[in-house]
Amino acid sequence: MVTIFASERLKEIYPQIKLFVEQELYPIEMDLLKRPFNEADTILQEKRAKAKQRGLWAPYLPEKDGGIGLSMIEFAQVSELMAGTPFGHFVFNCQAPDIGNIELMHKHASTFLQEKYLVPLMNGAIRSCFSMTEPEFAGSNPVNMGTTAVLDGGEYIINGHKWFTTAADGANFAIVMANTNTEASRYEKASMILVPIDTKGFHLKRNIPVMGDTGEGWLSHGEIEYTDCRVPVSHLIGKEGSGFLLAQERLGPGRIHHCMRWIGICERAFQMMCKKAVDRDMGDGTRLGQKQTIQNWIAESRAEINAARFMVLHAAHKMDLSGSKAAKNDIAAIKFFVADILMKVLDRAIQTHGALGITDDTLLSFWYRHERGARIYDGPDEVHKSSLAKSVLKEYGLKI
Amino acid sequence: MVTIFASERLKEIYPQIKLFVEQELYPIEMDLLKRPFNEADTILQEKRAKAKQRGLWAPYLPEKDGGIGLSMIEFAQVSELMAGTPFGHFVFNCQAPDIGNIELMHKHASTFLQEKYLVPLMNGAIRSCFSMTEPEFAGSNPVNMGTTAVLDGGEYIINGHKWFTTAADGANFAIVMANTNTEASRYEKASMILVPIDTKGFHLKRNIPVMGDTGEGWLSHGEIEYTDCRVPVSHLIGKEGSGFLLAQERLGPGRIHHCMRWIGICERAFQMMCKKAVDRDMGDGTRLGQKQTIQNWIAESRAEINAARFMVLHAAHKMDLSGSKAAKNDIAAIKFFVADILMKVLDRAIQTHGALGITDDTLLSFWYRHERGARIYDGPDEVHKSSLAKSVLKEYGLKI
Amino acid sequence: MVTIFASERLKEIYPQIKLFVEQELYPIEMDLLKRPFNEADTILQEKRAKAKQRGLWAPYLPEKDGGIGLSMIEFAQVSELMAGTPFGHFVFNCQAPDIGNIELMHKHASTFLQEKYLVPLMNGAIRSCFSMTEPEFAGSNPVNMGTTAVLDGGEYIINGHKWFTTAADGANFAIVMANTNTEASRYEKASMILVPIDTKGFHLKRNIPVMGDTGEGWLSHGEIEYTDCRVPVSHLIGKEGSGFLLAQERLGPGRIHHCMRWIGICERAFQMMCKKAVDRDMGDGTRLGQKQTIQNWIAESRAEINAARFMVLHAAHKMDLSGSKAAKNDIAAIKFFVADILMKVLDRAIQTHGALGITDDTLLSFWYRHERGARIYDGPDEVHKSSLAKSVLKEYGLKI
Amino acid sequence: MVTIFASERLKEIYPQIKLFVEQELYPIEMDLLKRPFNEADTILQEKRAKAKQRGLWAPYLPEKDGGIGLSMIEFAQVSELMAGTPFGHFVFNCQAPDIGNIELMHKHASTFLQEKYLVPLMNGAIRSCFSMTEPEFAGSNPVNMGTTAVLDGGEYIINGHKWFTTAADGANFAIVMANTNTEASRYEKASMILVPIDTKGFHLKRNIPVMGDTGEGWLSHGEIEYTDCRVPVSHLIGKEGSGFLLAQERLGPGRIHHCMRWIGICERAFQMMCKKAVDRDMGDGTRLGQKQTIQNWIAESRAEINAARFMVLHAAHKMDLSGSKAAKNDIAAIKFFVADILMKVLDRAIQTHGALGITDDTLLSFWYRHERGARIYDGPDEVHKSSLAKSVLKEYGLKI
Repeated sequence: MVTIFASERLKEIYPQIKLFVEQELYPIEMDLLKRPFNEADTILQEKRAKAKQRGLWAPYLPEKDGGIGLSMIEFAQVSELMAGTPFGHFVFNCQAPDIGNIELMHKHASTFLQEKYLVPLMNGAIRSCFSMTEPEFAGSNPVNMGTTAVLDGGEYIINGHKWFTTAADGANFAIVMANTNTEASRYEKASMILVPIDTKGFHLKRNIPVMGDTGEGWLSHGEIEYTDCRVPVSHLIGKEGSGFLLAQERLGPGRIHHCMRWIGICERAFQMMCKKAVDRDMGDGTRLGQKQTIQNWIAESRAEINAARFMVLHAAHKMDLSGSKAAKNDIAAIKFFVADILMKVLDRAIQTHGALGITDDTLLSFWYRHERGARIYDGPDEVHKSSLAKSVLKEYGLKI
Repeated sequence: MVTIFASERLKEIYPQIKLFVEQELYPIEMDLLKRPFNEADTILQEKRAKAKQRGLWAPYLPEKDGGIGLSMIEFAQVSELMAGTPFGHFVFNCQAPDIGNIELMHKHASTFLQEKYLVPLMNGAIRSCFSMTEPEFAGSNPVNMGTTAVLDGGEYIINGHKWFTTAADGANFAIVMANTNTEASRYEKASMILVPIDTKGFHLKRNIPVMGDTGEGWLSHGEIEYTDCRVPVSHLIGKEGSGFLLAQERLGPGRIHHCMRWIGICERAFQMMCKKAVDRDMGDGTRLGQKQTIQNWIAESRAEINAARFMVLHAAHKMDLSGSKAAKNDIAAIKFFVADILMKVLDRAIQTHGALGITDDTLLSFWYRHERGARIYDGPDEVHKSSLAKSVLKEYGLKI
Repeated sequence: MVTIFASERLKEIYPQIKLFVEQELYPIEMDLLKRPFNEADTILQEKRAKAKQRGLWAPYLPEKDGGIGLSMIEFAQVSELMAGTPFGHFVFNCQAPDIGNIELMHKHASTFLQEKYLVPLMNGAIRSCFSMTEPEFAGSNPVNMGTTAVLDGGEYIINGHKWFTTAADGANFAIVMANTNTEASRYEKASMILVPIDTKGFHLKRNIPVMGDTGEGWLSHGEIEYTDCRVPVSHLIGKEGSGFLLAQERLGPGRIHHCMRWIGICERAFQMMCKKAVDRDMGDGTRLGQKQTIQNWIAESRAEINAARFMVLHAAHKMDLSGSKAAKNDIAAIKFFVADILMKVLDRAIQTHGALGITDDTLLSFWYRHERGARIYDGPDEVHKSSLAKSVLKEYGLKI
Repeated sequence: MVTIFASERLKEIYPQIKLFVEQELYPIEMDLLKRPFNEADTILQEKRAKAKQRGLWAPYLPEKDGGIGLSMIEFAQVSELMAGTPFGHFVFNCQAPDIGNIELMHKHASTFLQEKYLVPLMNGAIRSCFSMTEPEFAGSNPVNMGTTAVLDGGEYIINGHKWFTTAADGANFAIVMANTNTEASRYEKASMILVPIDTKGFHLKRNIPVMGDTGEGWLSHGEIEYTDCRVPVSHLIGKEGSGFLLAQERLGPGRIHHCMRWIGICERAFQMMCKKAVDRDMGDGTRLGQKQTIQNWIAESRAEINAARFMVLHAAHKMDLSGSKAAKNDIAAIKFFVADILMKVLDRAIQTHGALGITDDTLLSFWYRHERGARIYDGPDEVHKSSLAKSVLKEYGLKI
């Protein structure tokens, strides 16, 4: 916890989540990673039950919905704890993409959709996915998109090709971004529509092999073809044409969630690096940690992780105070700044482990592979940098 | 100001200092840098009088001593404003090395020394210097030192060779680190002694030319020979043998002061970079700021300066709450982390200015040259990194 | 080809190998990577037959042994071509670890061992492995090792634990480093012994999962237990106690081989990056390659790959002229210098590909994962840097 | 010398120039830097006489013009030796901007101009300058320029504002880039005209203070106003409208000259770093060079300087073989690649020297300040990167 951001509520919940993660999840994490997802899931459901029982379930949710009602700044700090182990967020029902869908549906879904889909999602009874990115279109800019949803009677007919629909495998429904009005201005073309995955025309073509892992279940990235896929108009989320706006609204907090998670990964990798530095006997009576290069890595990592955490917490704080739009530049900044630090810290931790570091015998390989995407998903670094710079330069009078 | 660290007092004083700096100092800064120091000093004394008159004098001092009594976290934020212009700190009597000497003498000098030396120093009537570093000894470690002070009757006879005694030229006195007991344990050898510079045997051999500037007056780094330099025993600061301890006590806040200052420099350089990016016509109707490389630099600089500021403020906050020792690791981290960012931001600002950036027609050249030392003085980066890493690894059980 | 290093022989062979690689291997590389190794092997054996038939087999071997007798500097340049595709070296029987074992046995194995093992190895009839690294010992320094070979009658009894015995799975024999005399001086403890893998007591415990790949056959890294593993004394390679010396002799050229290979990978990744930059439509009529950041990456990669190639060729040239020992510093330099560039180029190529870059749909993911070890195997960067620096500083008089 | 580029002639001349530089110039370099240029010049003229006498004068010139007729690849290697000391090139009459003007006038000046100006320039009797860059126009692109030369009778009337006209102070003449036909296509507007500096209307407004040095004589960068400055049409170099073409022709080899020089500076800084690492006693019986961080810097610098040298020599080799245009991409690559390494090596050398490194007591400060421009002059890094990338991407079909 960071002193100045430590609320009373946080002081109470923080050590409980820390204990849970370290006692319940650390000991089984490597084993879980080796199992097929459905096997892992069985074990994870027990842990979920235990988390619920201890009152730690989905702490970002309002109390009435089964959570604790943490503010962003509070959640940021427990999220970091969860991120120290691959299934941490999953156990507390704080995992992407569900958490983003929950936040979205909380605000914008009709009562019908909330009762039918949001409630079981919040309970952890079902999973969901978010279907936006398309292989044929560059960037993560939802204004460039080929998927369409054409109104026909009381139904939308959806056609399109999506990929990186994370966790589609085994999900109950997808929220799809599709153009409902291709004639509208660029920010008003798209809408968000909930599609149950058992809808005819919804085809999970494959789980995309990513960095050596085909993945399965929650740990997968789907490629999906929508072919004349029909859903009732009641499955629209928000208004027609509000897709871009809702996506922006979803992405802001989503990026903060990612950054929190990355800091948790950094912190765990840092611990592993320190332990290895202390344990590794160099064969001459000294330990690896006495090498100045290792000390440089540890010092630089310590400083960078601290910096990243302060950045993220201050962005979360601004979001709590003034909303996502006011924190726009802060969010752009943390997105690329923290992703960069994540890569550096993981890389140093691996190098410190030597040959062991590249095996799958530690968590480092998992993160090294699965988090390389951090600099790409939800907008590549390059887009966030330009966007932040343009925003700054506008204040100096640049017309772009 | 950073929201969460903005006290009521700060909200009042901050805009006043900002205004003063921008209206009174920005317009004359380039002119002042071109003048001999004694000429500049005449103008600066007028500005000092004005600062006093507006109640902005030495805001870190207690009210009874003529200041405002700002906490470290408050001072950090106004210090950044002062740092935006080369003579900013000087005008508010917050300049190194006097501020460090003032803090030191406040706590540890005898009433005699305080009345005779501290009072005029706080008033700005005199200047002082701090004489620790020696050319023959590596690092900034005050346990390695050749200067001695031998007690003879009621006087210390000081012999030694110092350099980088900043601002010795024109100072009223020096505080000298000298070994009073070479037989004592390494941390108890040294003492701090106040030496008026008109003492016989005190010889300012030269102002050391640093990065193209010989310097003069307050803007200089002296090389000093102490040859049978006698001062009464009453000039001892603190106890005999406490020199190392006092030096540590002086250096902790001193490093925070440096970091605050660097952030102020970064922020000003950032402004210059943005202005240039907007103003520079590329000859084809576009502006320099439309180039993606420039946008990358602006975004990275914005993120890094923010990170640096959060780091420094949190360290200052910890210092305010729990003292310098508790903040030891935080201070080591900011020392190298912020210095690195300072170098990067200055370098990008220069590159953005093209040929103009390497001329002395802007402030950038002054800072590029005068702040290269940031990674060296008060302990080079390498020492701080090792020290931080060792401290971390001890917690993991490393015996070093 | 680099003009000044282009011999007549090379000018003839170079385009033939280029053609072979591009026509025979590029089209099937992605498919091969998806198959189990034994399936891939069947296809690869056909390609090997074709390579032999065209006179391109093992070009580094003397003509009498079925090769072309290329010098190191010539081989370096065709090796780069082979490295453009994952099975390139394998098809020409130039793959590690066999090539290293062949070079070693050529010089140091008895006629008995040569006839029985070297000949089929050169023909490609069998595969081999090299068993040196041990999990319990830091670094790649063969003076720290726990495996022993005790003479008992006419046999060595080998006991020990090895890992990263690359390609052990399916190999015909291993060359094992073991201490034959633990009392000898540190450089004379070890010997190299050939162990047929069907020897009792040789146990391939597992193929170590590395960066998400358990691997199989030639594409694997074995963990091996030697338990009272007996081989006749005639299986000794070189003299008893010469293991360290032979390892050094093996590693020098081995490191050059790695570097050549890395340059080939860089060059292919560079091509992919350029193609993507040109093909990717940004949705506004421009292409990705018009972004200045992408241009920076392309320019930096082009310069760095060129630099790497010149470094490696000059090191190879020195080796050809004056031997491995004379080129010691050059080899240390390329080991870390080229590995670093490899990481950078792969990283930029991935980022240029966006989401596609992290999938297994391109070669980039394969290399990103499988070549992270480049900075670790055959001595981590840190060891090579220290070793080079010490060698330089000795010339300046440092006693280390 | 690099083995493969060491001609017989070079083997003879190389050690002679090395000896001259080390014996005649190293011992006086620090003293020369402290003197006013006219004082230094007196001493330098003696050294020049000695260099001539030993047959080492202007070795890049044909023998008939008093040189040795070295090829680019040969000259590159002795140029590196000269660059080890600030006045090295000057003593051998190889200094910029004269060497560039000599090459230019050799090929393109009329016999009249050659006899009157080129001959004394080659003899070292006079100095010259090159007046291209203008403060009001971005980049180093000579297609954007405000200076005009209007034909009036047999004379050009030149009006314009130039800066960074290096060594204008004390020069005999300037070669000015001016637009002779503002209506022509962008590459045919400009011409090069020789202007004696005593021409009415030629006004050296100031020597621009650069990184703390106002400079003087040869070591200066002039800001110049041309006001109705009249020169006879016979002062035209090449054809009217050929200015851009000639500038390109001048800049290609000029950039190679810079790179050679930078490598020489790197090599000398590297020597200083190594010496310091060996000499600096850490107070505990160890030397600075035993610190792993210092070793990293030494190893990285050694590798990078080698890489830079190979790059530059191969570019020079290509230029010798196929001319400047064929080597265009190679030259763009070395311009930014070597400048970057120069910065890194100087920075590490300074950091290794600690406080001494930022003083003017060593050469490092001089180079750190005076070579920061390396990444800017003759085209900033950013321009060279884009230009190289575009050239590469064109081969892949990009239309830019």
